Amino acid sequence: MEFVRNTWYAAGWSEEISRTMLPRTFLNEPVLLYRKEDGTPVAIADLCPHRFVPLSLGKLVGDTVECLYHGLAFDCTGKCVDNPHGNGLIPKAARVRSYPLTEQYGLVWIWMGDPVLADPALVPDFVWLNTPEKYRAVHGTINLKANYLLVMDNLTDLSHAGFVHVTTLEPRELAKASYEVIEEEGRVWTKQFVPSMPVPPLMNIVKGFTGVLDHWLEMRCDPPGCMITYYGFTTPGRPREEGWGTYNPNIITPETDNTTHYFWGSARDFDLDDEEITQKFEVGAAYAFEHEDRPIIEAQQKILQGRELMDLKPVLLQNDQGSGRARRIITRKIKEERAAAEAIHDLAEQAVAAE
Amino acid sequence: MEFVRNTWYAAGWSEEISRTMLPRTFLNEPVLLYRKEDGTPVAIADLCPHRFVPLSLGKLVGDTVECLYHGLAFDCTGKCVDNPHGNGLIPKAARVRSYPLTEQYGLVWIWMGDPVLADPALVPDFVWLNTPEKYRAVHGTINLKANYLLVMDNLTDLSHAGFVHVTTLEPRELAKASYEVIEEEGRVWTKQFVPSMPVPPLMNIVKGFTGVLDHWLEMRCDPPGCMITYYGFTTPGRPREEGWGTYNPNIITPETDNTTHYFWGSARDFDLDDEEITQKFEVGAAYAFEHEDRPIIEAQQKILQGRELMDLKPVLLQNDQGSGRARRIITRKIKEERAAAEAIHDLAEQAVAAE
Amino acid sequence: MEFVRNTWYAAGWSEEISRTMLPRTFLNEPVLLYRKEDGTPVAIADLCPHRFVPLSLGKLVGDTVECLYHGLAFDCTGKCVDNPHGNGLIPKAARVRSYPLTEQYGLVWIWMGDPVLADPALVPDFVWLNTPEKYRAVHGTINLKANYLLVMDNLTDLSHAGFVHVTTLEPRELAKASYEVIEEEGRVWTKQFVPSMPVPPLMNIVKGFTGVLDHWLEMRCDPPGCMITYYGFTTPGRPREEGWGTYNPNIITPETDNTTHYFWGSARDFDLDDEEITQKFEVGAAYAFEHEDRPIIEAQQKILQGRELMDLKPVLLQNDQGSGRARRIITRKIKEERAAAEAIHDLAEQAVAAE
Repeated sequence: MEFVRNTWYAAGWSEEISRTMLPRTFLNEPVLLYRKEDGTPVAIADLCPHRFVPLSLGKLVGDTVECLYHGLAFDCTGKCVDNPHGNGLIPKAARVRSYPLTEQYGLVWIWMGDPVLADPALVPDFVWLNTPEKYRAVHGTINLKANYLLVMDNLTDLSHAGFVHVTTLEPRELAKASYEVIEEEGRVWTKQFVPSMPVPPLMNIVKGFTGVLDHWLEMRCDPPGCMITYYGFTTPGRPREEGWGTYNPNIITPETDNTTHYFWGSARDFDLDDEEITQKFEVGAAYAFEHEDRPIIEAQQKILQGRELMDLKPVLLQNDQGSGRARRIITRKIKEERAAAEAIHDLAEQAVAAE
Repeated sequence: MEFVRNTWYAAGWSEEISRTMLPRTFLNEPVLLYRKEDGTPVAIADLCPHRFVPLSLGKLVGDTVECLYHGLAFDCTGKCVDNPHGNGLIPKAARVRSYPLTEQYGLVWIWMGDPVLADPALVPDFVWLNTPEKYRAVHGTINLKANYLLVMDNLTDLSHAGFVHVTTLEPRELAKASYEVIEEEGRVWTKQFVPSMPVPPLMNIVKGFTGVLDHWLEMRCDPPGCMITYYGFTTPGRPREEGWGTYNPNIITPETDNTTHYFWGSARDFDLDDEEITQKFEVGAAYAFEHEDRPIIEAQQKILQGRELMDLKPVLLQNDQGSGRARRIITRKIKEERAAAEAIHDLAEQAVAAE
Repeated sequence: MEFVRNTWYAAGWSEEISRTMLPRTFLNEPVLLYRKEDGTPVAIADLCPHRFVPLSLGKLVGDTVECLYHGLAFDCTGKCVDNPHGNGLIPKAARVRSYPLTEQYGLVWIWMGDPVLADPALVPDFVWLNTPEKYRAVHGTINLKANYLLVMDNLTDLSHAGFVHVTTLEPRELAKASYEVIEEEGRVWTKQFVPSMPVPPLMNIVKGFTGVLDHWLEMRCDPPGCMITYYGFTTPGRPREEGWGTYNPNIITPETDNTTHYFWGSARDFDLDDEEITQKFEVGAAYAFEHEDRPIIEAQQKILQGRELMDLKPVLLQNDQGSGRARRIITRKIKEERAAAEAIHDLAEQAVAAE
């Protein structure tokens, strides 16, 4: 299937990319991730162009990777720098693709599209992940056996929390509350504010709250892969700044047509040093993704068997507005990229014809 | 593949359908089975029309099923009766298919075709399963990784017993005995009668018989799925009523193109209260299906890999007459259903054109 | 995919074919191997033509095989010789294919093509396997989850030893040494001779050698499946006959498009009675194939997913000459066989038209 390519996808948490080679597939392409001796992260195709053996089976020697099979060595730009056979001449074609990376917010991001467009400033803000003086953050990596759009649907339609996560995150009644959907320059916001709501289990568990609180629940989505959920409470009538806020990055990257990397984070702006609360967030988030969301999303994938959900004419509800907009943005971006590729192809043909 | 749809298929034994939701696939369609609070069995599509999550992951509340993902609730007719989101309006398309059921002979039967035609009187007689004052019956459920036609071939050609079940049911020589095949109104009978036959192991084991007995072996087949084997003995020259008879329902339902639900039963008309004999029948039947028939049928499926057996031009033997007739009835029924569907489609088009 | 058919493929080591029926697939065809009571090996299709059950599930009775399902019996020419049903007439079509076999060098060889052409003299010489007075040989069987051409590439390009087997067989530097490729009548030789080379680990382990030796490394390849590696050493400047030679048959047979039978042997011409050395060769060879070659070859297969390696335009190195020639010979043979089949087909059509 086609994916948006000219965008930053999360490739891994900073500590996942190391001097031990990490093979990881993105958008159906096998990629090899590692760090140079100076710490710079590197991404090259995980595929020797000689016999198509994964380079990750080989050895990392200094900053170059040596293929296990016949010893061809590639530097971090993907260029073959050593052919140990015969006269040692290096064939022109002996190179593999390298991918632009940028390291921000404790994540290494990869650009699967045109390298010329890979501007590090395009990574959406996830400041909550790496500002320990203001936020205490936990994070993890999950792989889901489902197409990334099903994962995106799950995350952009926060109303599911009142059903799937009803014992922790939200009461069922939240689904009735009104909410706002805003689209601005390829970003979708879904915002809900509920005054004087009964305290949900999570805030009772971590803070001991009872009674009622004002509650905000907001999703910021930069399709295809960058989402964050703002989930917080404050004393009825008081400003948000006086309350208790959590900031939950939900960052997804298509692995294949049918599987998705899911990098989740959860940051809070209160009780930064309370390790008991930190652990509750860590264990609780992992539990929710593994045991509450995963079975649903993977069941959908099994039923769809590779068919596109929208082609099956699903019933639409009011709460689908966020995911609907996000899906339309993705469709538009894919079309734009296809059109741009065709235009370049036509120009090239005209140039050849003019010669 | 195409299946006969306008027929009653066994969906489960009565005790399998309960207040615990049971997801089961028939004819490639996911179906959810449960009982209403008053005990009536219900079958609806196991697929929420909103995001295509199996309803069986959700909750049974009274007589309605609530989807786990976003809480849409469906009644036992498949109608959405609660949308807990926003203003709560229920979209017209928010309904799932419901399937007619009838409960007879200790089985719940499902109609996968046109509901108008679902006449409960069409279920073939399996009185031996639920007449405890005259018959002692045992039963079980098996799932076979093979197309249902291969299972039907196995059952309708009883000659296999002299080879596959030679240590229990029949001597090899039975294959030589003549037999009769009768077709009447979509039902196929295969009948064999062998006078003064040496007692086979089973009757020696359960009754201690030795010497010779008259033996009947008959298969009644209502394609596609309803079969019963009559297997019995009597003292040479004496009427059947004086002998020892067993009645063995073999009821199959296609699960997918490549898998089959198999509901087997075994009833006898002698020593009704002898629990030792009952257990021998129960254990013996399960053993024969699991360890003698299953490996053969699943090996066929592996070799065929989805190809139709008859397309491979198999060698035909005399003993294939029963299964051959049953297969032709199925083919004819499928054609008739297709023709009827096309006729309805044409009439509808003419009606539209005439407007 | 198409295979060369008019050639001898190894079917199994002599001791693998016995009075216990052995089902084995070659070129995607299920074959049943066994020995007659007089010891002659037999190969017939492992597929009853009645209901397509594997005959290997049945019984070997004398020299005939009886199908488990309905008792049809086939002799070692594939002819049905017993139909235990009804009047016992045997339908003309009740026969399965039989395959020519020849037993040579401790292996049973099978001919999957036109039986008329199956000349036992065409089996390449593997005298080292069964001449115990001059060579001490060990052997084994492996199944690889990869297309046979990938296994052939591995074996015909011996340069991989300096990388994949660097801790035992060859130093990395060997890849720089010049070598010769000779093609003669469908056979490809790759020959390398390195004077005064540091002793590699293997010869140090088994013989205690240190210092330098003259070294030869040669591959004789009869595509598609018959290869042997000559690997030996001698005192610098002395003739080969005075040295220590090993002879390593590498014989492969396509099982399916994506899997390969690999029959490996290793013979030596020194210390014939030293069982410690024999064991080192046995364990060492099995280790190298299982733990060093297998992961690479199966990783290639996973990446190719059935695509032909050469269609992906791999970078070619000098060391690919041997495998390149072997692949071209296979392609040519397949084309020739296809052309011959079409010619026969055309002649037959003309004959019919002329009647």
